[in-house]
Amino acid sequence: MPHITLPDGFPGITAGFAFRPETAKPMRALAEVLLRGPNTLTSGEREMIAAFVSSRNDCQFCQLSHSAAAAHHLAGDYDIVSAVTRDYLTAPISAKLKALLSIAASVPQGGKAVTSGDVERAKAEGATDKEIHDTVLIAAAFCMFNRYVDGLATMTPADPQAYDEMGQRMARSGYLAPAGK
Amino acid sequence: MPHITLPDGFPGITAGFAFRPETAKPMRALAEVLLRGPNTLTSGEREMIAAFVSSRNDCQFCQLSHSAAAAHHLAGDYDIVSAVTRDYLTAPISAKLKALLSIAASVPQGGKAVTSGDVERAKAEGATDKEIHDTVLIAAAFCMFNRYVDGLATMTPADPQAYDEMGQRMARSGYLAPAGK
Repeated sequence: MPHITLPDGFPGITAGFAFRPETAKPMRALAEVLLRGPNTLTSGEREMIAAFVSSRNDCQFCQLSHSAAAAHHLAGDYDIVSAVTRDYLTAPISAKLKALLSIAASVPQGGKAVTSGDVERAKAEGATDKEIHDTVLIAAAFCMFNRYVDGLATMTPADPQAYDEMGQRMARSGYLAPAGK
Repeated sequence: MPHITLPDGFPGITAGFAFRPETAKPMRALAEVLLRGPNTLTSGEREMIAAFVSSRNDCQFCQLSHSAAAAHHLAGDYDIVSAVTRDYLTAPISAKLKALLSIAASVPQGGKAVTSGDVERAKAEGATDKEIHDTVLIAAAFCMFNRYVDGLATMTPADPQAYDEMGQRMARSGYLAPAGK
């Protein structure tokens, strides 16, 4: 049961968004630019970073919904996303994305946990400054979203189908629409 | 030295904001509504929550700048703010704010660390659902801001005067202006 009285029938973060539209607006806008704005990282890659950080933060709602969004950006392929959250170093993804995930893996422990070694390895794999910046910020932003979802004890749907539908909507329509994320 | 090439001469988070205006915009908007928007918690109280969470996350730039902002909302009184970051339970603040700080103290450990006991104690001290929501979200947002600042290894000014001037500007003009936070 949520810690405060939230509007009925909204899963996860959407309950907080419905409760407080004033804060929802910039949070939705941030998710939109980070995960779907113009970028040399694909939306599939960025959603995988989001799902991965959410799994490290043990936020089931965000992990499952962003895994589904990533899968829908990847023609419905859930296997890659599962491989990334299970063990990204052996997942069938590029060396650059693995190096960026190593940066993202440090962020939940704290900003200072990101080392210059992590960053140099990502640059050696061809990551640009903007890609490194966005990886740090996606990871940091999900340290916020995850804590918001679980800090209010919002409702986490049990049905996998619910996440598949959410992910499809997130991949297709994004985060700005009131009925989105 | 920052992990990536950031624009010269911008302290802390302002360097990230100058590097990536597209993400700066919603982040600034979120800080503005959380810390300065209409609220039954004063801006001084909300800036104290921000400074407190930043101290728990060991982010010196955010702790010192938001401590200064809080002090400038409190007629320049740095003593209350220092007392809160040192030991909020003995600080000269209301029982309600202490209870909200107990909620904020749990958030850096993870969203699930916020217990219904924490929340019930805050309600017993008169905290509203909106105040509890905003405390969770301020704490979660600073888990993002702190990780962004330190995850990029941005420049942290050493001069206390620099923070006093920043805090004065943040308290007076807020977070939306490009030369703000």
